[in-house]
Amino acid sequence: MTDRHLYAVIMAGGIGSRLWPRSRKATPKQFLDLLGPRTMLQDTVERITPSIPMERVLIVVGQEHTETVRSQVPDLPVDNILVEPGPRGTAPCAGLAAVVLAGRDAEATMAVFPADHRIADAAGFRKAITAADRIAQDGYLVTLGIAPAYPHTGYGYIQRGDLLQGTDAVPAYRVRRFAEKPDAETAQEFVRTGKYYWNGGIFVWKVATILAAIGTHLPKLATELQAVAAAWETPRRGEALASAWSHVPRTTIDYGIMEKAARIAVVPVDIGWDDVGNWATLSRLLEANEQTNVLHGSGRSLLLDTKGSYIYSSGRKLVTTIGLEGFVVIDTPDALLICPKEHAEEVRDIVNRLKEEGLEEYL
Amino acid sequence: MTDRHLYAVIMAGGIGSRLWPRSRKATPKQFLDLLGPRTMLQDTVERITPSIPMERVLIVVGQEHTETVRSQVPDLPVDNILVEPGPRGTAPCAGLAAVVLAGRDAEATMAVFPADHRIADAAGFRKAITAADRIAQDGYLVTLGIAPAYPHTGYGYIQRGDLLQGTDAVPAYRVRRFAEKPDAETAQEFVRTGKYYWNGGIFVWKVATILAAIGTHLPKLATELQAVAAAWETPRRGEALASAWSHVPRTTIDYGIMEKAARIAVVPVDIGWDDVGNWATLSRLLEANEQTNVLHGSGRSLLLDTKGSYIYSSGRKLVTTIGLEGFVVIDTPDALLICPKEHAEEVRDIVNRLKEEGLEEYL
Repeated sequence: MTDRHLYAVIMAGGIGSRLWPRSRKATPKQFLDLLGPRTMLQDTVERITPSIPMERVLIVVGQEHTETVRSQVPDLPVDNILVEPGPRGTAPCAGLAAVVLAGRDAEATMAVFPADHRIADAAGFRKAITAADRIAQDGYLVTLGIAPAYPHTGYGYIQRGDLLQGTDAVPAYRVRRFAEKPDAETAQEFVRTGKYYWNGGIFVWKVATILAAIGTHLPKLATELQAVAAAWETPRRGEALASAWSHVPRTTIDYGIMEKAARIAVVPVDIGWDDVGNWATLSRLLEANEQTNVLHGSGRSLLLDTKGSYIYSSGRKLVTTIGLEGFVVIDTPDALLICPKEHAEEVRDIVNRLKEEGLEEYL
Repeated sequence: MTDRHLYAVIMAGGIGSRLWPRSRKATPKQFLDLLGPRTMLQDTVERITPSIPMERVLIVVGQEHTETVRSQVPDLPVDNILVEPGPRGTAPCAGLAAVVLAGRDAEATMAVFPADHRIADAAGFRKAITAADRIAQDGYLVTLGIAPAYPHTGYGYIQRGDLLQGTDAVPAYRVRRFAEKPDAETAQEFVRTGKYYWNGGIFVWKVATILAAIGTHLPKLATELQAVAAAWETPRRGEALASAWSHVPRTTIDYGIMEKAARIAVVPVDIGWDDVGNWATLSRLLEANEQTNVLHGSGRSLLLDTKGSYIYSSGRKLVTTIGLEGFVVIDTPDALLICPKEHAEEVRDIVNRLKEEGLEEYL
């Protein structure tokens, strides 16, 4: 039923610093069971495999997490783990997957998405990918546009233009422009028009199309990718990749390609998407108990006069609180975080301070 | 210089439940280094030994903490540890010490005080004990009256009556009455008059006087104490004590004796006394850093936008907070407490809930 040339490329290189102290260097966000019994990576794989079989799923990951991917996705063919020598942003990551796929299947189309997002409506997601695949066959770089739930100022927006053909149920539009993170007033205006979508970082394109776009807009990356491609099926693969990655400029798909390219389409979706950005947004996605608190982890808790809070504790640790409202408490064996939910974004500042002060053991 | 018949009796049987989760069954408050490098028991012993040598210091403690007392006060003669079979309140505790001392020294006078109070002015304390000793020789039951720092509603008060002789520098008064914990308005009136003192639970009396008072006001306790005294220097000591303690009614020095007895005196003191009742009062006694926070324990902390808070962490645990003001955070290896300081008294409710729910391992 699905296009047999359609591949999934899961980018599993994120850090998730706002979900510290659970998200750590050794086990970043995408490898954690933040939302349920499975990890976010496992959820991401299981969401797509009804449409795209495991043999056509690729995961791009850093060297230090290769074993984690193998153990979390044991059915994935080993050759489908692409190991990045270091993080260079999403453009080199997607470019690497593109040249590898080009070597396997000249007709390949790839759907690219992060390993650390939540999508409640998995069937809707797959339907949108199928629709985007169809548009991509006409040489479009296609992005999914997330129907904005509210005027979020922390996301980039995509403004749609003219209607393109889509599947019966799923329309598609040309993209008029990408807008960077707006101020509150602008965000409200965006949402009011009904013509703007959140940029969720989910893309579908033919490998030939994206490689051509990289050649045009990121020629330095294109050159390095050619060197990698030439060495891929030789013993020099690792060496070539390391050399290329020491030269490729750090850039993202959005800034490096989508904002510059001409033939861009958007497939609007309303699929319960969330980037699970911080502890406050995570807690909104989870079921609260009668006292409006969300309790997670293997530990115990005893909460007096406490409301609207998210409590995580591990092992047999007992967390007790009195008189808290709207708090986040994350207790791991070696690090504890306490903050009101409205400060959840500033967890990134904690992580930066730890780096500055050389407290590596807590990162 | 000091009366060679004067003994110190330190009551080390408290629980300190409002200082949970550091104060636990195995190591209650008095055995913790809450205020400095030494434990509260060690501070209490060192405060009195310049006046009363170690041979005349007795510590009354429960069976389960005998070894803790030995290790924390290694210079204490073993015979000076009196082991209570179980907690029965302060009256049986003091009564036990009285009959033991009566067997050692017919002229004995005893100064009785808890092991878990802070007294900043140790010299002033010793001077007051010396003055109280002098009054006690005239057959008074003497209590120290703490000059109230503010209209506290959590303490009992002592109203003074006529002036008695004291030492030159330290006056003494007859006690007019003991007042139970007052409401806020009454407490303010008490403090305004200048004739009321906090009841700090520090007493001085001749052994003969207190035993007579017990005989009059707590005849059942007196009978049991006589049986203990008769068996004390025999192999039946433990058995007799256990039997007596299974019968003695639970009561305190204040309710059982002082509020009923006739010849009661008070020696007013202003010695930086504090009962270190809960985490909020404890934190007021400690030096804050430039950010107005008090940091304790061997762990680390990283506090962003956090003020007026008390943070304890053990081991190498890192505690991080964002946007807290006036909080208590106590992180021990198996239990964590978080509350605003104004809820610090309710820590007792946590401990009660743990008991109710049978979570013994955290008590």
